[in-house]
Amino acid sequence: MTEERERARRPGGRSARVRAAVHQAVTDLVAERGYGNFTVGDVAARAGVADTSIYRRWGNLEALTQDVAITRLTEQSPIPDTGSLEGDLRDYAAKVARDVSGPDGPAVLSLVVALSTAGPDGARARDDFLAERTRQLQVMLDRARDRGEQPPDTLAVLDHILAPMYVRVLFGAGPLDPDYADTLVDHLLALHAAPPPAP
Amino acid sequence: MTEERERARRPGGRSARVRAAVHQAVTDLVAERGYGNFTVGDVAARAGVADTSIYRRWGNLEALTQDVAITRLTEQSPIPDTGSLEGDLRDYAAKVARDVSGPDGPAVLSLVVALSTAGPDGARARDDFLAERTRQLQVMLDRARDRGEQPPDTLAVLDHILAPMYVRVLFGAGPLDPDYADTLVDHLLALHAAPPPAP
Repeated sequence: MTEERERARRPGGRSARVRAAVHQAVTDLVAERGYGNFTVGDVAARAGVADTSIYRRWGNLEALTQDVAITRLTEQSPIPDTGSLEGDLRDYAAKVARDVSGPDGPAVLSLVVALSTAGPDGARARDDFLAERTRQLQVMLDRARDRGEQPPDTLAVLDHILAPMYVRVLFGAGPLDPDYADTLVDHLLALHAAPPPAP
Repeated sequence: MTEERERARRPGGRSARVRAAVHQAVTDLVAERGYGNFTVGDVAARAGVADTSIYRRWGNLEALTQDVAITRLTEQSPIPDTGSLEGDLRDYAAKVARDVSGPDGPAVLSLVVALSTAGPDGARARDDFLAERTRQLQVMLDRARDRGEQPPDTLAVLDHILAPMYVRVLFGAGPLDPDYADTLVDHLLALHAAPPPAP
């Protein structure tokens, strides 16, 4: 089978391939130059497509980078369903640690952060991402409650699992190995089992 | 006394005033437009100084924004010395919560994050900031150890005090009131007093 025919059989075909190439080009350019330091022309050249294809599909660079950030963050670290709260949290924390410390992790996270200072549209895209991720986490925590477990709330997962990993990546501080992800889950479970007394 | 003479007596004089005006202009522009969406000319117009003054002093926009990010983050949230570890942590957490949730907080944090994808110079500036802040925190934790207390390490302060607040601001998630800052300190002290058992 020729490479051309193999490509043609992939789900989504040419349109999906263009989208994937453009998304990867944006991620690479953010990693190499930082958000704000490249143009639609740079993305097109890197992805091997015409500028007009990008303008027709996304309208402008801001809309394109928002699409990349939301898509990458939503597709990565899918929510697990292992049958127990502890199993779900350990599986999820390990996935997040692997994704955010991978080659594209810092660039994707930085994109989301850049959105938050990129005006109302950027803030809306960031809020949409957070709402979607919160909804996914809530499904996992609701399952635990239905089994009779006592889950933490989604903000506690953000504060004690996601935030430490995000900040370690963004600030280049400390390792993000599987043991570290497990320790964060230990801490969340310990805090939730025995909350500190009110002051 | 004329306003002119009063100004002249301020520490640093005209040079310090120009620096403060330029720093505030950068912070405002990051908040309004996002990092990467303004020029040296925009900063000069906003600060009421000549473009050449900025080029002479800082060289280029990247060096200027690095100076702003490091200065703002280093000057805000000074390390307290209250006589006890708990007092120091509560005071410090309250200051950080106030600073990062203040009008310039998100812009300054976003600047630091933008640095981390702005090439080797940006990463170096970010690492310098983290090293300086870690050194300051270590002084506070060493004082606790000298008093016979059992302090956490600086990474635990980053993970459980600073990270949750930074991420809530950056992602626009949840409130950052004084009670929340106190709860984070409660959690850190509880974790450190009774670490979870090894798996």
